[in-house]
Amino acid sequence: MTRKIAILGATGSIGKSTLDLVERSPDRFAVTAVTAATNVEALADIVRRTGATFAVVADESRYTDLAELLVGTNCRAAAGEDALIEAAACEAELVIAAIVGCAGLMPVMAALQASKTVALANKEALVTAGALMMDMARSSGATLLPVDSEHNAIFQCLAGSRAQDVSRLILTASGGPFRIASAETISMATPAQAVAHPNWSMGAKISVDSATMMNKGLELIEAHYLFGLPSQRIDILVHPQSVVHSMVEFVDGSVLAQLGSADMRIPIAYALAWPERIATPAQRLDLAAIARLDFEAPDPDRFPALRLAREALEAGGAAPIVLNAANEVAVASFLAGRISFPEIAHLVHEALIGADYDAPRSVSDVLQIDAMTRARAQAMMTASCP
Amino acid sequence: MTRKIAILGATGSIGKSTLDLVERSPDRFAVTAVTAATNVEALADIVRRTGATFAVVADESRYTDLAELLVGTNCRAAAGEDALIEAAACEAELVIAAIVGCAGLMPVMAALQASKTVALANKEALVTAGALMMDMARSSGATLLPVDSEHNAIFQCLAGSRAQDVSRLILTASGGPFRIASAETISMATPAQAVAHPNWSMGAKISVDSATMMNKGLELIEAHYLFGLPSQRIDILVHPQSVVHSMVEFVDGSVLAQLGSADMRIPIAYALAWPERIATPAQRLDLAAIARLDFEAPDPDRFPALRLAREALEAGGAAPIVLNAANEVAVASFLAGRISFPEIAHLVHEALIGADYDAPRSVSDVLQIDAMTRARAQAMMTASCP
Repeated sequence: MTRKIAILGATGSIGKSTLDLVERSPDRFAVTAVTAATNVEALADIVRRTGATFAVVADESRYTDLAELLVGTNCRAAAGEDALIEAAACEAELVIAAIVGCAGLMPVMAALQASKTVALANKEALVTAGALMMDMARSSGATLLPVDSEHNAIFQCLAGSRAQDVSRLILTASGGPFRIASAETISMATPAQAVAHPNWSMGAKISVDSATMMNKGLELIEAHYLFGLPSQRIDILVHPQSVVHSMVEFVDGSVLAQLGSADMRIPIAYALAWPERIATPAQRLDLAAIARLDFEAPDPDRFPALRLAREALEAGGAAPIVLNAANEVAVASFLAGRISFPEIAHLVHEALIGADYDAPRSVSDVLQIDAMTRARAQAMMTASCP
Repeated sequence: MTRKIAILGATGSIGKSTLDLVERSPDRFAVTAVTAATNVEALADIVRRTGATFAVVADESRYTDLAELLVGTNCRAAAGEDALIEAAACEAELVIAAIVGCAGLMPVMAALQASKTVALANKEALVTAGALMMDMARSSGATLLPVDSEHNAIFQCLAGSRAQDVSRLILTASGGPFRIASAETISMATPAQAVAHPNWSMGAKISVDSATMMNKGLELIEAHYLFGLPSQRIDILVHPQSVVHSMVEFVDGSVLAQLGSADMRIPIAYALAWPERIATPAQRLDLAAIARLDFEAPDPDRFPALRLAREALEAGGAAPIVLNAANEVAVASFLAGRISFPEIAHLVHEALIGADYDAPRSVSDVLQIDAMTRARAQAMMTASCP
């Protein structure tokens, strides 16, 4: 049976990997809607390859270009946020939610409201609007499939388990480029050093998050909302080889782990085919060749972001939104050479201390708290480093 | 709901661990029948602790003693093979099949024929009568739950998967006491060196099987029958820490692994509670404290038993029975100081070459081939080392 798919963020890294898999199983999937932020040329190319009938560019100024590029196809062109929401709630059964940043929130919510199965690759959605998303999924009957390698691993390990049989989730972390660096070295880290991730090829922002370990803090928050376990039952374990993507401990003492090569097509394929599986061209894991897997406890002193994220999760309400927004501003400033590496965590800490927002009751609230936090964080930096 | 349990082999190591778990969840389980080979004192003690209503001693000469010990209880005493079969097919829903050796075959078959859920801890059953057992389970609708830590791990990793989604099983092996020993050292191994297993506390016979790696060869055969995969899709991977108990690779490249401390109560608990889980007192896995897991390919030159087992599996028919019986005779002779360590594999090899039996069509056939092979193996040794 053919599964109809909408790909929100089709021209990005997750979108490309999804298309690679979909094109290998043409009988299994039909792409109905695709979206992009600005790259209409790549989007039109995807329309021609997949036969999608609805294409949306988020940037409204690119609408005319997109419409022209789609002349001669059966594909309708549209632009702007309402069109993104329309794509998310269209005829597809499975929505790949791979729009980066807060721009992805409204479309993810729309897909959940429309009772879709949502393969979620947008990290901000659960961090900033986790409670709202999960409430919506419960009330609409939508299914949320995590695509992030760690959460996908946990989802695989949980398959079929009762909630009361789970005792602990164990999120693995590579430890990033400064895993064995001294506090002094870390304090002098440059952007070039911070973006040199040992295992995964990623963008600059997420690479810095890996260096501060804030990425793992954000994933802790995501895991809490996705799987419903409290902070104290979600551990973080440093595992530099990134072969074990995460684990679940059960009440009997048994631990299930998901392992694989560092290829996002594996978790994407799981979300595409779930509850079945499809073949991928990902390299098979050869543990005899890898030979050795290491594990160590994370160091909260050298990586204060982990503690900040856990505090934000435990505070709940708007705190995770503030954490995420302040971190984005701080990382951008660090990459621009305006603040030092340790100042990223300092700024997030200050933003959390100064925040006094009610818990969000809608995605609009989330977006507003996000915007206010960004403005505040910018102001705090201007005040401290003119 | 209380689950009625029969424990075949209640006084052995698996039986004791089972009772430990059952006594921790008195509302969940009711022990109805228990059996032992000869130890009537321990068996009567178990009857008094559990309130079992049927107790069987395999050794008929111990019947009077058992009957006397059970005076004043509500428990009926019986002895001999027919009584063991009666215990296996009694009112219990779950039969723990932990009788050691070929003596366990008939009772396991009886439990399967009676459509029970059978938690199988008898290694010989699947090695020697795997095709017969699985055919019986299929036709009667019985469920077979493996208790061996490796097969239990695979069973956990497979939970809910479709057969066509599985690409490979990976049985982990500690590598035994001679994992890094030279061929020359191995050739001079004494019984005391061979029984010194690094991770698990086990009996002498199974410890020698670990030293030759024949135990992993036997488990390969078991895995083939249990999970229906051909020999070439079941790999053996040496993992000296015995933390990863085994793994499953899926068609998408994802690998699921089950990990845990070296405590048989974990797999037994899984079989007892399946498809749910129950708490156990087993030590929680602390990977940060363990720090490191190693993996390496097994060496077929230093461990020829692995090759012999794979050949026996691929030959099929009576070959696995011959492999198992010849190995038992050879190990006993090695432990008695009659043959050298390398002669264990030589003897098994010779027995396999000389065997010419039809595939067994019944457990009686299996027992007959087993007995004939033992006699032949004894004769071969007498001929070579008078």
